[in-house]
Amino acid sequence: MLTPLLMLTLSCPALLGVAHADEGMWLPEQLPEQAQRLDELGLEIPVEQLADPLGEPLGAIVSLGFCSASFVSPQGLILTNHHCVEGYLQMNSSADADRSRDGYLAGSQAEELPAGPSARLTVVEAMTDVTDQILARVGKRTSDRQRQARIEAAKKALVATCEEPAGRRCRVAGYYGGASYRLIQARELRDLRIVYAPPQSIGSYGAEIDNWMWPRHSGDFAMLRAYVGPDGDAADYAKNNVPYRPPHYLSLDPSGAQDGELAMVAGFPGHTNRYAMASALRFSRDTAYPWSIDRADEVLAMLADESAKDPEAAARLAAPIGWIGNGRKYRQGMLDNFEASDVVERVEAREQAFRDWVAADKKRQRSVAPVLDELDALATDRRATWKTDDLFYRLVRYTDLLRVATTALRLADEGQKPDADREPGFQERDRDRIAARFASLERSLWLPLDRRTLTRTLTLIEDLPADQGITPVDEFLADHGGVDGAVAALFADTSLADTDTRLGLLEQDPATLRASANPWLQFAASLESWQAPRRARDKARAGASLRLMPRYMEALIQARSRPVYPDANGSLRVTFGQVQGYSPRDGVWNLPHTTVAGVVAKASDAPFDAPPRLLKAAADAPDSRWADPELHDVPVDFLTTLDTTGGNSGSATLNAKGQLIGLIFDGNYEAMSADWLFDPALTRSIHVDIRYLLWMLEDVEHADWLVEELGQAPR
Amino acid sequence: MLTPLLMLTLSCPALLGVAHADEGMWLPEQLPEQAQRLDELGLEIPVEQLADPLGEPLGAIVSLGFCSASFVSPQGLILTNHHCVEGYLQMNSSADADRSRDGYLAGSQAEELPAGPSARLTVVEAMTDVTDQILARVGKRTSDRQRQARIEAAKKALVATCEEPAGRRCRVAGYYGGASYRLIQARELRDLRIVYAPPQSIGSYGAEIDNWMWPRHSGDFAMLRAYVGPDGDAADYAKNNVPYRPPHYLSLDPSGAQDGELAMVAGFPGHTNRYAMASALRFSRDTAYPWSIDRADEVLAMLADESAKDPEAAARLAAPIGWIGNGRKYRQGMLDNFEASDVVERVEAREQAFRDWVAADKKRQRSVAPVLDELDALATDRRATWKTDDLFYRLVRYTDLLRVATTALRLADEGQKPDADREPGFQERDRDRIAARFASLERSLWLPLDRRTLTRTLTLIEDLPADQGITPVDEFLADHGGVDGAVAALFADTSLADTDTRLGLLEQDPATLRASANPWLQFAASLESWQAPRRARDKARAGASLRLMPRYMEALIQARSRPVYPDANGSLRVTFGQVQGYSPRDGVWNLPHTTVAGVVAKASDAPFDAPPRLLKAAADAPDSRWADPELHDVPVDFLTTLDTTGGNSGSATLNAKGQLIGLIFDGNYEAMSADWLFDPALTRSIHVDIRYLLWMLEDVEHADWLVEELGQAPR
Repeated sequence: MLTPLLMLTLSCPALLGVAHADEGMWLPEQLPEQAQRLDELGLEIPVEQLADPLGEPLGAIVSLGFCSASFVSPQGLILTNHHCVEGYLQMNSSADADRSRDGYLAGSQAEELPAGPSARLTVVEAMTDVTDQILARVGKRTSDRQRQARIEAAKKALVATCEEPAGRRCRVAGYYGGASYRLIQARELRDLRIVYAPPQSIGSYGAEIDNWMWPRHSGDFAMLRAYVGPDGDAADYAKNNVPYRPPHYLSLDPSGAQDGELAMVAGFPGHTNRYAMASALRFSRDTAYPWSIDRADEVLAMLADESAKDPEAAARLAAPIGWIGNGRKYRQGMLDNFEASDVVERVEAREQAFRDWVAADKKRQRSVAPVLDELDALATDRRATWKTDDLFYRLVRYTDLLRVATTALRLADEGQKPDADREPGFQERDRDRIAARFASLERSLWLPLDRRTLTRTLTLIEDLPADQGITPVDEFLADHGGVDGAVAALFADTSLADTDTRLGLLEQDPATLRASANPWLQFAASLESWQAPRRARDKARAGASLRLMPRYMEALIQARSRPVYPDANGSLRVTFGQVQGYSPRDGVWNLPHTTVAGVVAKASDAPFDAPPRLLKAAADAPDSRWADPELHDVPVDFLTTLDTTGGNSGSATLNAKGQLIGLIFDGNYEAMSADWLFDPALTRSIHVDIRYLLWMLEDVEHADWLVEELGQAPR
Repeated sequence: MLTPLLMLTLSCPALLGVAHADEGMWLPEQLPEQAQRLDELGLEIPVEQLADPLGEPLGAIVSLGFCSASFVSPQGLILTNHHCVEGYLQMNSSADADRSRDGYLAGSQAEELPAGPSARLTVVEAMTDVTDQILARVGKRTSDRQRQARIEAAKKALVATCEEPAGRRCRVAGYYGGASYRLIQARELRDLRIVYAPPQSIGSYGAEIDNWMWPRHSGDFAMLRAYVGPDGDAADYAKNNVPYRPPHYLSLDPSGAQDGELAMVAGFPGHTNRYAMASALRFSRDTAYPWSIDRADEVLAMLADESAKDPEAAARLAAPIGWIGNGRKYRQGMLDNFEASDVVERVEAREQAFRDWVAADKKRQRSVAPVLDELDALATDRRATWKTDDLFYRLVRYTDLLRVATTALRLADEGQKPDADREPGFQERDRDRIAARFASLERSLWLPLDRRTLTRTLTLIEDLPADQGITPVDEFLADHGGVDGAVAALFADTSLADTDTRLGLLEQDPATLRASANPWLQFAASLESWQAPRRARDKARAGASLRLMPRYMEALIQARSRPVYPDANGSLRVTFGQVQGYSPRDGVWNLPHTTVAGVVAKASDAPFDAPPRLLKAAADAPDSRWADPELHDVPVDFLTTLDTTGGNSGSATLNAKGQLIGLIFDGNYEAMSADWLFDPALTRSIHVDIRYLLWMLEDVEHADWLVEELGQAPR
């Protein structure tokens, strides 16, 4: 169903200005359409080989759920970003060994550290177009609510069948707003181990100061290894598990890529809004982002304060400080970009050109204009309840004990239904994952923080206009004489802070949970009774979107003269382009490479506290076998024109031969709004050069066994 | 005498590492030695033509005393920097018209504004080697004091003869520490008028924030015109004066220079220390610069405070705020450079290589080692009295009324001697200049500031160790019960704030001045009796330097394999190199051009308050006839590898044909220490592109008559 749409190359000019040589998060199967450009850029392997998601090299690309990764040895060795393994390091930290801060290097396979019970790696085994099956029971007269329900039911049925064999993890991904679907069947491995992670002073050198910035000098790499049971099947961590033998692994090319050469990234980008209407940008710019930034500032202040009080808090809260800080900088960066690059105005102009194109043809006007009107109305609907919905989400998300209670209750409620009818995320297949999260909470829970975030969120809910309030919260506050009383009542019982107690919740039925005297469960139950009809409302909205978006996308594609890629959705994509710098402002060119000399030049206090062993080795870096002959030094990070986003972190950066030359780990500040609008002049991806890892392993860490496992000759 | 030394190209390798292709402030006559490099870079005129200081183009290069400038039309039109005419604009400012801030544009020649009584322009008419005459009476056994006196007497005699015809200004300049001398005969013009100066918001766009920085967007240009009497002779300002017809003027090339192309600067660089000993750098780094920075901070705080209190003060004090701030940033920048680029360590290594070279040969050791020892001892001597000398200078320099009293007294004292015996600076030839400075003080004097700087300086002198004190200050403070009493006693009489009273001092003999009841004159007289023997001491030191430095330079030159240029001394020099960016830090390249789009991108509040008329015109800049085809915009500023320093401001930047393509106005922050050590990788000169001026005149200011006078076709 997809191909005809994609192949449409009508005679109308490219009205929308979206597509550019290096823009595009392409489905592997779309790459042959890009053969000419890939050839111009110097691709040295057949494009058909590159387009095979199960072949070489794409078959070596795997997912950690929140990050991408890749196999790099026949022994299941995995490369990803340092920032993707921070949670695993935290799981392995204690008062004696702060592995979050200091990193870890296994001296041999025997010393590799378990990444923890919630770590998962998925290896794609098949991708099948299931559009027809998903939409089989959806017709023109299907109501929005039914549409959502039937599509969800069809997805769940396909997933259930797919997951029948043990060790499988399946997912149906929708593309082009629901115009097409693919069943992605993956093998799920549960025993991941930490092989090497540099200290923070290398892995996130420069931390928040350098985050999103260029010039960059982060060694944002880490090495894991996947293990399976002795029988070769996926298994929980066990001492006698054996290294997994992946179907494919990437070879490394330590000659790197020079300025202007082809580079590609294969990975699992999470989410983009490349076809959003201008009103969505305006809402984000004027309302949602400023609000989120204010909320992040409040939480960050609390996190900093708690961390300053207690080193134990500092260790537990390092991760949220990182991701909330990152999210805050991301939103502020988008606001800055919006202003500096006229992003909203350009999207408005693009949309106006599209609307003019629609209006220019009576048939188009009849078919497309009502879709646009309905999409506008849908967006208006969502925005009307936006603040309440956001605060409800924050209430549950940022208070760990309430999240536990809510999750347990919903899992129990859904457990009453046949598995196929349960909400996605609360099916049998999700039970282990939830249990793992409940367990790992013992490493990150910090009640004083929970108490402060809850207080703040309740206060904000209390301040909502009367007609937008959250009734059970209002009642709860009234019952306890206001926010402070309510918080005190909840924290009078912190039994859910105990891991066994938490895990015990997963065994209880809804009635038992609802009858519990635990105030968190009682509060969660009252919230749930209020939220249930809102979920139904959201499903109807989702159904409307599933009806409208495919028609909107179809029209957009018709208005274009070039292939169109779908928005990112966490499924495997390939983006390609060149190693290339950019001009951040008039009179300045950001060069495409940084070097070890730059690490040394930045070295001072934290977060630029490069370790002495690195600084010592740096003096000889120009003579290292990993030095670049043109740069006369070991390269550290590099820039490309590739089109990437969150979820791509840890993705393999490939050269023209499909060999690994680096790992992507960030985008640049000047193009943070690229999720909305890709600006070819400004949008760059930031990668760590594989030679920096090799030099680090060999000349700084003296881990020659890993250099050799990466396929490099012994020195 | 010079040539044999310069031509020495011994077989020893270039030990000192000073010379580089683009380093060198060459005497015009040295350019033929550089013919090969000039040819490589693409010089399109005969090098002999370039080497003729009285020919074309060098004959068009003139001096404003503190800045360089050049003739650009047969009607005496002059180009220089905006920051070089700030004093003239201040002379023409009043409560009604703040020309310092708003600039000035004459609608026709009749509207050109007199630059003020102290403005002077010198046009070189002859340069003669007078080494033999200067050193005729100096022998091996001449004492240091005698040496200084005989050289000074010989210089004065040559100058006196040279200046016999009216309208002449002559000077004897010493090179290579006194190894050779040139008599520079110049015509001095006294009627300069302001033709065009942009507002500060263009001329010093970015002000202190952007000062020394790249990317830069300053329109640091201004236009003057020289006038002479109807008979063609130099004359004071008079309405019926006529434009001067210069012997040469530069033609403009609005095609500019592209990245990598030859650029040259001809002008009058003031002072460098390229052959200084490492101990001088260490002293500056560890003692003199930190002290100067502290003093500047104190004065700047006073200036800001006074300016904030009164708009009249703000207008009068804008100039010192500028130059003191600039000097402070310069010293801090040098300290930063010293650290970032290991400047002191590199000079130490270079000096050690030189000392090793001396030690390697017995004859050299016998002749050169004692010179080095004596120079070390001389420097130690000077540093022993440095702080006292510095505070004495500050006392007189930063208190206007005391400067007036001291100057008047010294002029009167010297006036008792035959003119040829008087101190340089206090001869008959200097009288007009002193009178002009006394007169123009009425535009800048601000007594509340004078009072505060005097209070601070007296306090610092009071705090000097007993054996380093300034006796007459100590006595004066004792007589008046301390600093406050002393300041009050002086400021009880502010009659010298009156211009006529000041000018009246110049008519009085020493006895009358010493008998005056004016406390400033009394204080000045007591200071002078203390200072006189110290001046004699300084002359003996100068004599020692004149004995030692030529021998030191001779040895340095022998140790080098390439031509050596003398340190800057305010005489005409030519430097050449290329348009070229540089890397301020790992991963970044500063591009060699900025554009009007960058002016717009920076526009916000002061000092980035680009005028609306500029911002309006900027939209069409890419289509202007002055736009660069490669940049697709009008260029604003550009970078070159040229070797320049203070005094070069306003110098013409020439292309391969010797045509004017811009004006140099600054150096870059990363190489502020270039006066000590030229670092080819980091040292850049910053120029304003002539196309920015042409665009400004035509598209922003609509001054087509000036565009045409600059030799451009009417649009």
